[in-house]
Amino acid sequence: MSTVTLEDARRVIAAAEKKADEIGQPMNIAVVDSGGNLVAHVRQDGAWIGSVNISINKAWTSKAFDISTKDLGDNSQPGQQFFGIQNTNGGKVAIFAGGIPLSRDGVVVGAVGVSGGSGEQDHSVAEAGVAAF
Amino acid sequence: MSTVTLEDARRVIAAAEKKADEIGQPMNIAVVDSGGNLVAHVRQDGAWIGSVNISINKAWTSKAFDISTKDLGDNSQPGQQFFGIQNTNGGKVAIFAGGIPLSRDGVVVGAVGVSGGSGEQDHSVAEAGVAAF
Amino acid sequence: MSTVTLEDARRVIAAAEKKADEIGQPMNIAVVDSGGNLVAHVRQDGAWIGSVNISINKAWTSKAFDISTKDLGDNSQPGQQFFGIQNTNGGKVAIFAGGIPLSRDGVVVGAVGVSGGSGEQDHSVAEAGVAAF
Amino acid sequence: MSTVTLEDARRVIAAAEKKADEIGQPMNIAVVDSGGNLVAHVRQDGAWIGSVNISINKAWTSKAFDISTKDLGDNSQPGQQFFGIQNTNGGKVAIFAGGIPLSRDGVVVGAVGVSGGSGEQDHSVAEAGVAAF
Repeated sequence: MSTVTLEDARRVIAAAEKKADEIGQPMNIAVVDSGGNLVAHVRQDGAWIGSVNISINKAWTSKAFDISTKDLGDNSQPGQQFFGIQNTNGGKVAIFAGGIPLSRDGVVVGAVGVSGGSGEQDHSVAEAGVAAF
Repeated sequence: MSTVTLEDARRVIAAAEKKADEIGQPMNIAVVDSGGNLVAHVRQDGAWIGSVNISINKAWTSKAFDISTKDLGDNSQPGQQFFGIQNTNGGKVAIFAGGIPLSRDGVVVGAVGVSGGSGEQDHSVAEAGVAAF
Repeated sequence: MSTVTLEDARRVIAAAEKKADEIGQPMNIAVVDSGGNLVAHVRQDGAWIGSVNISINKAWTSKAFDISTKDLGDNSQPGQQFFGIQNTNGGKVAIFAGGIPLSRDGVVVGAVGVSGGSGEQDHSVAEAGVAAF
Repeated sequence: MSTVTLEDARRVIAAAEKKADEIGQPMNIAVVDSGGNLVAHVRQDGAWIGSVNISINKAWTSKAFDISTKDLGDNSQPGQQFFGIQNTNGGKVAIFAGGIPLSRDGVVVGAVGVSGGSGEQDHSVAEAGVAAF
């Protein structure tokens, strides 16, 4: 079984930071491994302190359910099939954009989570991280 | 007082696993007894790690309120009579499909909880478990 | 990276159950994988309901720190180097006997946790599980 | 107000990693700023997953009380003046070696927390990080 090394995580984070700098919005960026456990986290200078936890939870959520938190969010609105999932797992489930799985050979082996801007910004920074994986 | 033995739980889980295999979606399956306490849990290879907690909570919820989590969910949407119930009991209340009570002689004596796919898939796998009880 | 499959977990649990039956003390037995996530759990008929959580936490702890909970406990007494570790990780750290790592080729790839009797009984039942891995 | 930048945190972490490599014990290393909020975290390959939380909490604790967790631990044993402090702050207080304040011009502006080995190893790796600050 493959997973995410610290070197992988640093490469993902570096690419995500570059994108955040381009956007001009400081971000929290977190990477978890195949077990959902944190490998690395950075908070760029000036990024929201409330987003430390959110970036880590977005990464965990994306690995925990092998899905982007954006897509999970769509299915977790009132009346949708997963409404209520945000109350499970001790509050670790994030249901808004910014978390994306990291895959190798078609298997999810980790995830990146980004928090610090709008949902669209967070998701695009996470995508930049995924592209570097 | 009647309850669910480990042998009962294994029969329920085996039937649920068989259904999950047919559907081709790996699942977490949990069974609780008349006290709502876990009797047995399995995570099939490749099933979501975020669903460990959810399967157990769905089983707990179905016994705790003697209702399927699908039906409880219908009553827990915004504007409905139980909206907010998902925030009670320390986060153990699941309000989406996949938990079904286990009854004997018309009395609920336990429950099965399934998590790992769509709401419809989870519910059908739980039904297969119930049928074996 | 190797981990623990459901088939592995069932073999470990079966051996642990056999030992518990010999001792005549019903047990909770849990197995986690390389990420510390639950693979399977059983509560034998008559085993303590308060031990559901403890068996799972012992397994998690043994994988989280690659050590038996018995040995971790020796280092976590007042005045010892890890005193206070039991208050970390949201209360998931168990510092009394019953959790043992599962290793393959010298690498810890999971763990078994047992709770339901004395520390000595729990540890011996866990050892029986490890021997079957 | 002076604090710890991401660049500072990376310099501290790099020095700590170097020391951990010399010791041959993979570590979790975390740095917090003057508000006690996480700036950066890394888990070296093979480091204990249970130490993610502990490294962050050690850093938080050292800034929260402007003291090393080793010294705080000495005062938090049974019978000592701070016994019980490990149960406060939602479980974030670590009372064993590995957390050390980061100071500038005699003022504590952040902290580093290390977890992954013995108390002595964790403390020495944290000291290496402090020296680079």
